Amino acid sequence: MTLTPRHEPVELAKCYRLLNHGPVTIVTSAHQGERNIMAAAWAMPLDFDPPKVAVVIDRNTWSRGLIEASGRFALNIPTRAIASQVLAVGSHSGRDGDKYAALGLDTFLGDSDLPLLSGCAAWLECRVLPETAMQQRYDLFLAEVTAAWADPALYSEGRWHFPSQESRTLHYIAGGAFFATGESFEV
Amino acid sequence: MTLTPRHEPVELAKCYRLLNHGPVTIVTSAHQGERNIMAAAWAMPLDFDPPKVAVVIDRNTWSRGLIEASGRFALNIPTRAIASQVLAVGSHSGRDGDKYAALGLDTFLGDSDLPLLSGCAAWLECRVLPETAMQQRYDLFLAEVTAAWADPALYSEGRWHFPSQESRTLHYIAGGAFFATGESFEV
Repeated sequence: MTLTPRHEPVELAKCYRLLNHGPVTIVTSAHQGERNIMAAAWAMPLDFDPPKVAVVIDRNTWSRGLIEASGRFALNIPTRAIASQVLAVGSHSGRDGDKYAALGLDTFLGDSDLPLLSGCAAWLECRVLPETAMQQRYDLFLAEVTAAWADPALYSEGRWHFPSQESRTLHYIAGGAFFATGESFEV
Repeated sequence: MTLTPRHEPVELAKCYRLLNHGPVTIVTSAHQGERNIMAAAWAMPLDFDPPKVAVVIDRNTWSRGLIEASGRFALNIPTRAIASQVLAVGSHSGRDGDKYAALGLDTFLGDSDLPLLSGCAAWLECRVLPETAMQQRYDLFLAEVTAAWADPALYSEGRWHFPSQESRTLHYIAGGAFFATGESFEV
């Protein structure tokens, strides 16, 4: 499957809405010619404006070194169409070679030259905040969002709209099991 | 509607699974005879064992003072059946009087004498970790989970199983709009 990157900018003051419903994320990173990609279920908004996020990045991951060295990462929000890629990037280590090439992943470049994964619903480019004690004690990274993008077919004018089951975002359970984002309703 | 509290203990080493899929939470707190309840969409697991969580508690909330004073809070995970309560507790302030009484909310007591909201799917009782700089700078509370409970009809043996649409957990969008947790599938 070839996935055409479709992305339009999302207003930074409202980009928390891309993460607000608690979807699983894919963390992409790059530093001096090396790049990596991993899954992260533990990510959430931290502030509205300027937008910040919090994400747990295990110290045993290859991505961790790239993120600490570059001070940057991107959160990619995958859809059900690429759920197998989410599992694959969470099951292999970048130490064993470039995962993008090994897994045949298409990317495009964001504003900060981070690889963004094609076929995702949305993307948040982030700059790590200098809270190194949190990184060391809890593997917790706090970051400011510097650019946000969404596929306009799935998210536009501040709202998600999933035209198909395959276009829904994902919520990770454990062991290869996910929930798709379900029915929307208003109270 | 009277909701009978049904809760069975959840093994602490696996209680991250209650939060892993990113559901909206209700934060309950109490201190010296006062108690409060608020909604929090920004909560996530922080570690497996001992289990920790991270949650954003705005400095302008009444709950914040109770949590700082007592060093405790509980994360309650609501279902669609009580979505209107989630919105109500997120739209009123405890400064205006006891919200439980005003909104007719039933509770039961957890291990640490925190009020737990009846009708929820699961409950995590938490002790705040002494990371006060994070609280002051980012409204971010890190906490260790000291007890975890779930309604066995919705969660048992480490797995969610939602027997009805009304029993599904929730993901907050904005402005009174939610997603229900959707279809589960394996990759």
